[in-house]
Amino acid sequence: MRRIASRAAGRSMAALAMSAVAPRLALSAPSLMCVAPLPIARYQSRLSAAAKEELDDELQNERATPKIPDGWSVSHKKGESRFIMKKKHNDEALTVVCQLQVLDPEVAERRAAGEGSDVVEHYPFTLQVERNGRVIDFGLTFADGELVIDGMTHYESAAIAKDDTAEGDLRRERQYQGPTFAELSSTFVDAVVDYLETRGVNDDLALFVAEYSYSVEQQEYEEWLRNVVEFTK
Amino acid sequence: MRRIASRAAGRSMAALAMSAVAPRLALSAPSLMCVAPLPIARYQSRLSAAAKEELDDELQNERATPKIPDGWSVSHKKGESRFIMKKKHNDEALTVVCQLQVLDPEVAERRAAGEGSDVVEHYPFTLQVERNGRVIDFGLTFADGELVIDGMTHYESAAIAKDDTAEGDLRRERQYQGPTFAELSSTFVDAVVDYLETRGVNDDLALFVAEYSYSVEQQEYEEWLRNVVEFTK
Amino acid sequence: MRRIASRAAGRSMAALAMSAVAPRLALSAPSLMCVAPLPIARYQSRLSAAAKEELDDELQNERATPKIPDGWSVSHKKGESRFIMKKKHNDEALTVVCQLQVLDPEVAERRAAGEGSDVVEHYPFTLQVERNGRVIDFGLTFADGELVIDGMTHYESAAIAKDDTAEGDLRRERQYQGPTFAELSSTFVDAVVDYLETRGVNDDLALFVAEYSYSVEQQEYEEWLRNVVEFTK
Repeated sequence: MRRIASRAAGRSMAALAMSAVAPRLALSAPSLMCVAPLPIARYQSRLSAAAKEELDDELQNERATPKIPDGWSVSHKKGESRFIMKKKHNDEALTVVCQLQVLDPEVAERRAAGEGSDVVEHYPFTLQVERNGRVIDFGLTFADGELVIDGMTHYESAAIAKDDTAEGDLRRERQYQGPTFAELSSTFVDAVVDYLETRGVNDDLALFVAEYSYSVEQQEYEEWLRNVVEFTK
Repeated sequence: MRRIASRAAGRSMAALAMSAVAPRLALSAPSLMCVAPLPIARYQSRLSAAAKEELDDELQNERATPKIPDGWSVSHKKGESRFIMKKKHNDEALTVVCQLQVLDPEVAERRAAGEGSDVVEHYPFTLQVERNGRVIDFGLTFADGELVIDGMTHYESAAIAKDDTAEGDLRRERQYQGPTFAELSSTFVDAVVDYLETRGVNDDLALFVAEYSYSVEQQEYEEWLRNVVEFTK
Repeated sequence: MRRIASRAAGRSMAALAMSAVAPRLALSAPSLMCVAPLPIARYQSRLSAAAKEELDDELQNERATPKIPDGWSVSHKKGESRFIMKKKHNDEALTVVCQLQVLDPEVAERRAAGEGSDVVEHYPFTLQVERNGRVIDFGLTFADGELVIDGMTHYESAAIAKDDTAEGDLRRERQYQGPTFAELSSTFVDAVVDYLETRGVNDDLALFVAEYSYSVEQQEYEEWLRNVVEFTK
């Protein structure tokens, strides 16, 4: 994961340390002299204990999984930051892929500080329609309660469209990505909206994607806490 | 293609649907009862028809391909979002690679709404100079009518510089990319400008790159429309 | 290297050419008629001479390498834009990887023009803690004199965490990246700060990373100048 390199602010270790780390270090330093293994164990388990506490909190507040829209199946592999939805439509195979977003730390910081209230939550995802060995890939986003169409790419071959490797990613990037959607005529865009609606890809599906993203994020967060508990024991 | 995840606005399906989709759905629903295959065919062909209409419009307005600068050859492989220019200069092989840019949907939306008039159109491209098995790679941009130098990377080996795979990309990213150009002395930058000018890499070439980008974009857009017509038939 | 495509300004060739290139071209053009090889040689060596001059300047101002923090070893491979630090901590292997940042040309331009004084210099790096065949990867940044925690990812297997290929990068991107740090409780974040502090990963180490980045950048810049001298001779 590369992170964007233009951060202006952040949670500062110095500030955090002032209240928590510095005094505790002062207290624990002497014990290092007499019973060496103990403080190390205590250090190692402080993070483990904090993760355990968070996990227990989370497990008490578990929310229900959102209802899967008719006709779709949903799968998510534990540990992965994406989930996949599938559906048949006549002679077409529809696949939705939703990759959970990693917030830019700066944006996250501003939002947590209550300054990013203007930033709309959004959930980008793709819809692949496969038909007769060819694929059209729709770039979609759920933002501000609505489904937005970002783009539409055509692939001559399903093998290229579905190549799940870094070389496949690069090959697709070098293909023509389709026109800038904002510049298309409203007649054409209406026809695309209609095409998607016919396949059940609409505001309701996009809302499900957003809700299911929350759900997957929550499962993965809990699993992450379990791993941190174990790793730092 | 990953898209940037900070969209504030977008063309909304709900808004579009209000005028177009909703009433039509209401009208076509009853016919689903009596002649099942017909409405499906109509749905599938609405997008196909809209794409056909756009294509016919585009074919009437075809513009001339810009004149290729002396000494250069240009190639573009159908379906690809880049084109390549080649030229010999003494014992050097010059290669220009121009990758068509995908506009961030948010930026595109603002521009289409007439709000992005401050956004300068730009066309980034690279010039590779190969000599004695080594390569210098110039990062260049045509912006606001002028050629701008972004950076300059040296590769020990042409094999590394020209490795056209994802692994090659990563290997190059891990190499030193060269200094920040804006921080270099004007004497040095003038010498680079002179070096490029001697090889015919100047404002005129950059303007050609921009014009040829339009031309390739246009060809690919028409091919894309043909593919959409066919796919959604 | 992909560059961000939203540049508003830049060092313009036209402006530079006005004072330097255009008059010189006018003067040298006639000599092309009588002694063909001479002007070519002069053109080719102008950049070489300018690079040599920069190099001589740089070699006079060499600064000392910062002192390596206790317990860590540091390695940097010539030509690479990153360096690696290693340390043992009990049954853990700690690895810091710092990739030198490439400034966005637009940001660099504004900063060089004295307009980007609000932009804080930052140095992102990662810390990998390997233990019992598993890895936790901390995303860290030195910004504004302090260490900032960006994120924390857990990998089931050290082989996945350390796979140094493009496919490895992609595989990691598809894994759950961990929660948004700005949203975590201060109790948990304090425990992470403590965990890092215990391993000597603190403001001082982050300052070293920043200083050593300068040092590596300087070495690589000088080597780059040597390569440009040679290449354009």
